[in-house]
Amino acid sequence: MKNPVFICGLPGIGLVGKLAAEHIIKEAKGALVAVLYSPSFPHHVIMRKNGTMRMLKNKFFLVRNNGRDILILVGDVQAMTPEAQYEITGKILDYIQPKGCREIITLGGYGTGKIIPAPRVLGSAISKKFVACYKKYGVIFGETKGAIIGAAGLIPMLARLRGMKAVCLMGETHGAYADPKSAQSIVLILNKILGLNVGIGKLEERAKASERFMKNIEDEAKKQMNYLSKGDDLSYIR
Amino acid sequence: MKNPVFICGLPGIGLVGKLAAEHIIKEAKGALVAVLYSPSFPHHVIMRKNGTMRMLKNKFFLVRNNGRDILILVGDVQAMTPEAQYEITGKILDYIQPKGCREIITLGGYGTGKIIPAPRVLGSAISKKFVACYKKYGVIFGETKGAIIGAAGLIPMLARLRGMKAVCLMGETHGAYADPKSAQSIVLILNKILGLNVGIGKLEERAKASERFMKNIEDEAKKQMNYLSKGDDLSYIR
Amino acid sequence: MKNPVFICGLPGIGLVGKLAAEHIIKEAKGALVAVLYSPSFPHHVIMRKNGTMRMLKNKFFLVRNNGRDILILVGDVQAMTPEAQYEITGKILDYIQPKGCREIITLGGYGTGKIIPAPRVLGSAISKKFVACYKKYGVIFGETKGAIIGAAGLIPMLARLRGMKAVCLMGETHGAYADPKSAQSIVLILNKILGLNVGIGKLEERAKASERFMKNIEDEAKKQMNYLSKGDDLSYIR
Amino acid sequence: MKNPVFICGLPGIGLVGKLAAEHIIKEAKGALVAVLYSPSFPHHVIMRKNGTMRMLKNKFFLVRNNGRDILILVGDVQAMTPEAQYEITGKILDYIQPKGCREIITLGGYGTGKIIPAPRVLGSAISKKFVACYKKYGVIFGETKGAIIGAAGLIPMLARLRGMKAVCLMGETHGAYADPKSAQSIVLILNKILGLNVGIGKLEERAKASERFMKNIEDEAKKQMNYLSKGDDLSYIR
Repeated sequence: MKNPVFICGLPGIGLVGKLAAEHIIKEAKGALVAVLYSPSFPHHVIMRKNGTMRMLKNKFFLVRNNGRDILILVGDVQAMTPEAQYEITGKILDYIQPKGCREIITLGGYGTGKIIPAPRVLGSAISKKFVACYKKYGVIFGETKGAIIGAAGLIPMLARLRGMKAVCLMGETHGAYADPKSAQSIVLILNKILGLNVGIGKLEERAKASERFMKNIEDEAKKQMNYLSKGDDLSYIR
Repeated sequence: MKNPVFICGLPGIGLVGKLAAEHIIKEAKGALVAVLYSPSFPHHVIMRKNGTMRMLKNKFFLVRNNGRDILILVGDVQAMTPEAQYEITGKILDYIQPKGCREIITLGGYGTGKIIPAPRVLGSAISKKFVACYKKYGVIFGETKGAIIGAAGLIPMLARLRGMKAVCLMGETHGAYADPKSAQSIVLILNKILGLNVGIGKLEERAKASERFMKNIEDEAKKQMNYLSKGDDLSYIR
Repeated sequence: MKNPVFICGLPGIGLVGKLAAEHIIKEAKGALVAVLYSPSFPHHVIMRKNGTMRMLKNKFFLVRNNGRDILILVGDVQAMTPEAQYEITGKILDYIQPKGCREIITLGGYGTGKIIPAPRVLGSAISKKFVACYKKYGVIFGETKGAIIGAAGLIPMLARLRGMKAVCLMGETHGAYADPKSAQSIVLILNKILGLNVGIGKLEERAKASERFMKNIEDEAKKQMNYLSKGDDLSYIR
Repeated sequence: MKNPVFICGLPGIGLVGKLAAEHIIKEAKGALVAVLYSPSFPHHVIMRKNGTMRMLKNKFFLVRNNGRDILILVGDVQAMTPEAQYEITGKILDYIQPKGCREIITLGGYGTGKIIPAPRVLGSAISKKFVACYKKYGVIFGETKGAIIGAAGLIPMLARLRGMKAVCLMGETHGAYADPKSAQSIVLILNKILGLNVGIGKLEERAKASERFMKNIEDEAKKQMNYLSKGDDLSYIR
């Protein structure tokens, strides 16, 4: 690979990171290069319309770019315990590091509880020296508070221990719904950072499909879960 | 064994899979061939009417068929964490694979929230190429949505990594009660798939006994659990 | 040791097993022979009136009897996950088996939700062949339903795999409060089974002290826990 | 190091221990000597105002004192499971023991539910023989009941198994809010015990900043958590 950069867009607030990453993969015709399964993902399998099932997973795609290669991680789910999050983050870094990745950009949403017409892209870097690198592309630093939950924060921090460069980019978002507008802001900034030329026209439409898809799965999974538990704490039937 | 097929009927929605599998074992005079215990099953033991206790367990039965042997897994319970579900599924496959099993059929219920007079059997296969194999017996594919929770989905998907053929058959069911009608549909389809000739006359009666038994155990276990916790989150007495 | 029998009286329904076991230790002047700690016990330490603290623990006492030695396990707490219950049960059996223990009697309460003036002792054995051994002493078999939760059931069942003889004796009890009457019934039966001559006069008084002690610790621990959590699900302060 | 004493001030009731320990580090110009991370801490990273993020962690500081060196542990968080608490406590002892630490003083709050104008310092030692050592400095023993939850109790008790001297000092506190007054009492007693001369003038102000900081992080983390869960028990988005 040519000096690859690693982009992570796993599910999170407003689905912002996931929508942006999936959109880039589609637009830039990314190729699937690896799949990550974990026994710490929920023990569910997803049923597809074509009569088949598939596991919950995370997927690595490779986008060949003129300037440099882009390795993008997207997925259905993140692990649910601290121990599993740490373990999986370690595995992800073990995978990308030998490929020559020296820079990591994780994507996410920053929930504000407000509807924001022109969502900005907020950043948080693993070290002060990297702030300027992204600021020049329009990322705003120093306006986020609190915690980044899950992979979007843990991957950069653990990458830091390996001497990598890393930042988390968060699109402002209401938080209560999937937000393609916020994902568009992310894509536009990534265009600049990575020298990409990804259009954002189809993002809204794709986001709707993606949100519908996720919501569908979750609603249906919840429905089947309810049939199993029936409000009981103790049930031998799982 | 003669080209064995593996059937899994663990507890789940409407007890459909468990009822169908147990009924076949009884009708076809299956022989107990192995027992599976796990420290990830609830730390309860079941008290029997004859004054003895027994552990929660899963059991493998062998049904000798003219065409091919049938290995059937039934049980009291499934594990409650993703990690344990993955581990136990691995152990199950480790057990059946060296016996020559190349085909897996897991059984379950598909909750609809409606009372269904003539429940259909819905299917989800691990790969498109297996859809046709079961469609011809009347299994309906492509009408299920959402997730299969637990062993009925995880066993087929992990079997896929071992190059096996696998499908999950789900009887339509309301979801709120044990459903022998749905289990009957499953049995009738399995008769066709496996060349069996299992009558369904006694299923309703057996289902009632089985449901009563399960409900009894669960109610009583819940009763004793309540005496232990008394609504407190913190209790040194477990 | 002289053909030792192992008695287990850990906390459970109505504190019946714990009260009976502790009473016998006191009356028969049992000597502390081993202590069991576990990282799966709650991460609390108990503060004593004399200004010192101590860990939550289980303790083994030895009662020298004319007929045969008696090894008695009592304690503050049981582990809270299935995996930990299995692990600790294994350790307990690893400890008692090389000492020559071939017989195990676990003690507990059987919750009925009713106040019972003359509580009977109900039994559940690991095998039909052991039912008669205890029936002759007045233990009633076949009247319990549902599940035994925790060590009182798991120790006998795992002992079974080691070829030992084991039974669980349960004193009938309301379930909502510590019940010395039920513990007295247990002690009287154990007197017969073990050829002991333990008086039950002081049990009520001891039970009151023991219940007060347990309740005190639990109430105070709960109080401090509440200060920590303040009804929040997320708190960095534990 | 010169006969070092180990002080532990992790988050807990009323933030008393944390406030006292951090104050001493600031006043006595403690130097950071080690950092402790754990995959059992929540999988969150903290965003700082300067546009960078940092991991949740515990930190060891060294205060050079005339009489003897003081090693002080403070941090954002404690682990949330018994198993992790035991493991981390072991690691802490593994770190301080080879440095020659023979004495451990853990700090905490003792919740009373009342506003206390002049909070006393209550103590609980690992053994009767150490009670007198701290009583002479004004620590009050024998007035605490119930349990010490987390590191403040577990570190001393596990240190006991290594033959160390250890005590937990608890400032009386209401329990519902961060309490600098209680922390001041702790600092004044530690001055006497350790021959320090730490002023308490700035503690109130520092406590306010520290409480604001903690509350801020927790509120913001909670906010982002809420965006993730939206009141659903089942969500593939974490």
